[in-house]
Amino acid sequence: MSAGAGFALGRLAEMLEATLEASPERVVTAVASLTGAGPSDLSYVADRDHVAAARASRAGAFLAPLGVTGLPAPTLQCRDPRRALAAALRLFHPSLPSVPGIDPSARVAADAKVDPTASVGPLAVVEAGASIGPRVRVGALACVGPGVMIGEDSVLFPHVVIYAGCRLGRRVIVHAGVVIGADGFGFIPDAAGPLKVPQVGIVVVEDDVEIGANSAIDRATLGETVIGRGTKLDNLVQIGHNVVIGERCLMAAQVAIGGSSRIGNDVMLGGQVGFADHVTVGDGAMLAGGSGVAHDIPAGQRFSGTWARPVALAHKIWAAEAHLPDLLRRVRTLERRLATLEARPPERG
Amino acid sequence: MSAGAGFALGRLAEMLEATLEASPERVVTAVASLTGAGPSDLSYVADRDHVAAARASRAGAFLAPLGVTGLPAPTLQCRDPRRALAAALRLFHPSLPSVPGIDPSARVAADAKVDPTASVGPLAVVEAGASIGPRVRVGALACVGPGVMIGEDSVLFPHVVIYAGCRLGRRVIVHAGVVIGADGFGFIPDAAGPLKVPQVGIVVVEDDVEIGANSAIDRATLGETVIGRGTKLDNLVQIGHNVVIGERCLMAAQVAIGGSSRIGNDVMLGGQVGFADHVTVGDGAMLAGGSGVAHDIPAGQRFSGTWARPVALAHKIWAAEAHLPDLLRRVRTLERRLATLEARPPERG
Amino acid sequence: MSAGAGFALGRLAEMLEATLEASPERVVTAVASLTGAGPSDLSYVADRDHVAAARASRAGAFLAPLGVTGLPAPTLQCRDPRRALAAALRLFHPSLPSVPGIDPSARVAADAKVDPTASVGPLAVVEAGASIGPRVRVGALACVGPGVMIGEDSVLFPHVVIYAGCRLGRRVIVHAGVVIGADGFGFIPDAAGPLKVPQVGIVVVEDDVEIGANSAIDRATLGETVIGRGTKLDNLVQIGHNVVIGERCLMAAQVAIGGSSRIGNDVMLGGQVGFADHVTVGDGAMLAGGSGVAHDIPAGQRFSGTWARPVALAHKIWAAEAHLPDLLRRVRTLERRLATLEARPPERG
Repeated sequence: MSAGAGFALGRLAEMLEATLEASPERVVTAVASLTGAGPSDLSYVADRDHVAAARASRAGAFLAPLGVTGLPAPTLQCRDPRRALAAALRLFHPSLPSVPGIDPSARVAADAKVDPTASVGPLAVVEAGASIGPRVRVGALACVGPGVMIGEDSVLFPHVVIYAGCRLGRRVIVHAGVVIGADGFGFIPDAAGPLKVPQVGIVVVEDDVEIGANSAIDRATLGETVIGRGTKLDNLVQIGHNVVIGERCLMAAQVAIGGSSRIGNDVMLGGQVGFADHVTVGDGAMLAGGSGVAHDIPAGQRFSGTWARPVALAHKIWAAEAHLPDLLRRVRTLERRLATLEARPPERG
Repeated sequence: MSAGAGFALGRLAEMLEATLEASPERVVTAVASLTGAGPSDLSYVADRDHVAAARASRAGAFLAPLGVTGLPAPTLQCRDPRRALAAALRLFHPSLPSVPGIDPSARVAADAKVDPTASVGPLAVVEAGASIGPRVRVGALACVGPGVMIGEDSVLFPHVVIYAGCRLGRRVIVHAGVVIGADGFGFIPDAAGPLKVPQVGIVVVEDDVEIGANSAIDRATLGETVIGRGTKLDNLVQIGHNVVIGERCLMAAQVAIGGSSRIGNDVMLGGQVGFADHVTVGDGAMLAGGSGVAHDIPAGQRFSGTWARPVALAHKIWAAEAHLPDLLRRVRTLERRLATLEARPPERG
Repeated sequence: MSAGAGFALGRLAEMLEATLEASPERVVTAVASLTGAGPSDLSYVADRDHVAAARASRAGAFLAPLGVTGLPAPTLQCRDPRRALAAALRLFHPSLPSVPGIDPSARVAADAKVDPTASVGPLAVVEAGASIGPRVRVGALACVGPGVMIGEDSVLFPHVVIYAGCRLGRRVIVHAGVVIGADGFGFIPDAAGPLKVPQVGIVVVEDDVEIGANSAIDRATLGETVIGRGTKLDNLVQIGHNVVIGERCLMAAQVAIGGSSRIGNDVMLGGQVGFADHVTVGDGAMLAGGSGVAHDIPAGQRFSGTWARPVALAHKIWAAEAHLPDLLRRVRTLERRLATLEARPPERG
């Protein structure tokens, strides 16, 4: 899946702002893992823990942290090797140029606006009044609902569904199977059964958001559910109605945010974190994987557990719990011994 | 996304059974949130906590609880404002009339029965022997398997998949990406690897059920997996094979019900609640979000935590846990002090 | 959904290696549950707990464990009744013969290779360079990406999406809505917002794997995410990038495996188990439903809870926690009583 004739190491060193001590003319044609790499591949040494694996690798060159030397092939030493890896991957795997145009098998409503530089894949559906911006790619079998707006350079992978009226910004990436804009879960108790509250708001996905496969983001009851600029959601994430998520957040797989919650900027959520409704999380807060959040989380704090507590306390509790069964016995023993002591006759004197 | 020329407040007061003190002739054309509303919008004051926000709102009229007055625009006072909101939303956003007929790009098997009042969307698939009732809407790119039956007025959003032989009742709403009738997870341990038990039952979804986006409901091994009348499932919910769910239940996002469990009527499950197999939950029980359920839950009880306990006990434990690390130290201190006391020479006398 | 004219009990006894004491000529035409069975059905008695239900059943014959007699209809006694049930279900519900060929509505790239014995369903998409092996079934509306390879006898249910370059082995079953090969969740922190690390690896699904509805398996950053031979995943499971899963594992619904984790052979994971990144699980380990795994799990051990501990300890802690609120009070009382004792004047004498 690599492209082109490869890069000389000297040229790579320039482009990646790396130091190279030898063999600037050697050419590598792909990036590969330490174990998978062969003599024409560039491989990647994340940190000193991987130096032993690198010594056993057949790679033709390495990206490594500054100061890592003595590897069996020429080494591009980088201040930030992970960032250099990302840059190298972009060099070796440039985005394929979009082939503009609407596949003849796609179904595009007569009054939908599809920019001539956009592409609409086979068997995709674009409904009435939708607007598809420049260089957008709508994948095979995707469904863009009535009145949906998609900003320039966004990518919908196959099988994405966007319900009526939702708006996506620029450079948004939506992976396969994502559903944006389904009805929020709003019901009123009633003796005849839960009574549906119509969900007439929309979802707004701001610029540079990425949404993982099979995630679901519900439309607002009124107004907007918002995913803020630059936020990244992993797979199978659930965002309830009227949630507002700030900018640059990272949410790992299977997170679930309850309705009307407010998530600040730069918040990081581990996998499977779950929120009650109407919770507020301050900027820069972090929640460990699996946490359950029923109360507000202050900005900049790290919390963990169900229900979430400050991480240090949560860890202490977890460690102490191992002694809890024994503690019960020890307290029972203390009570018995104390009773014995108390039963001693008072001092005669 | 609102429709029509709007409603005069006097007319709305009648239809919503609300009290209006002034301006019956004023017309509102949409419903909007307190912050989003403008002078031609009706907005909504859920309770007295929202009165301050209402005072700052530019809305042209308000729905509010009885006794809420002094707002900056005419106020429809309602006994149950949330129910009035739902009614207002239905007035302003009536269901779009279904356009009957089969889109020419849909693939409908020759022997499938599609009621002439039903609609089948673009690129939908209806397989052999399926039966689609009156006024049903099958969304774009949905797939209705062989022999599936769908009752009148039900709605399948785009990308729903229903496997062979499953049955949906009337007025069922199935959101995008839902899979109904995939094989249950049934395997027999075997040295050569898990041996599949064929799953030959079906799923029965009763009347008035709603199923959230990307949920999965497995077919029974034998017989039926059942979702009872009026039950509502949120997004990304998992229902195992042979589960039987009663009527009017509410299950929030990412709930998972293990195989062969029995859920009573009017049960409420918070988000991410997980069940082992073969668990029974009594009528009207409630489980807090994130609970893990490995044992039966009695009717009418509220449980919480993993594994679930009565809510009051679970809360007490959670609060007490904060003291657990300290408790360990205190017990150690007690043991030392007690040993000192015990070591005192017995009274001489 | 049963097929054919049925089987005589004598013939079934031979095929299922069962003992039959009477009525070898009686014919049953379907398999049904104890409550659902009628006189022409074979039903199934899992163990002695179900004998009472069997006595009330109208079934025409029973599969039952050795030694179960006295049922109201002829009984096939089997050493392993669950395995006999699976065999009987395969007899009564043989796989429908694949109808080879490409549905005229499917979109198959000119240079894709589709074996003439394979079937490609209505409105499916097979992209450039993909290779579909003998007797493979690609369901309606499925999307097979560029360069994907699918081994013989595999089945993709409707709406499966396989991203570019991924490889599936033989006899793989992929249920509806599964996404294989979406980008892993790899980002580098950056002041301007998380910076995407291109994900250029693939997913390899080995022979005899089954993947449940709406699951998501991410492609590797470099190299391969691997699902080992014979492993079975339930619905809504999340597998992160670069995860390597061994052979014959069972993972229940909503499991989430963090990036780069290594899961051994014959590992069993209950529902909703969640993993941090870079965790290793040894062969034959078991994790109870809902466990959270942040540290390596040794081979052959059973763990439970968040964070996971050995099952016996986890159960003891759970039981002891019920006494924790009371324990706090008891320790406070002990402290007071001890202080009183300590305050007694030292013995005079």
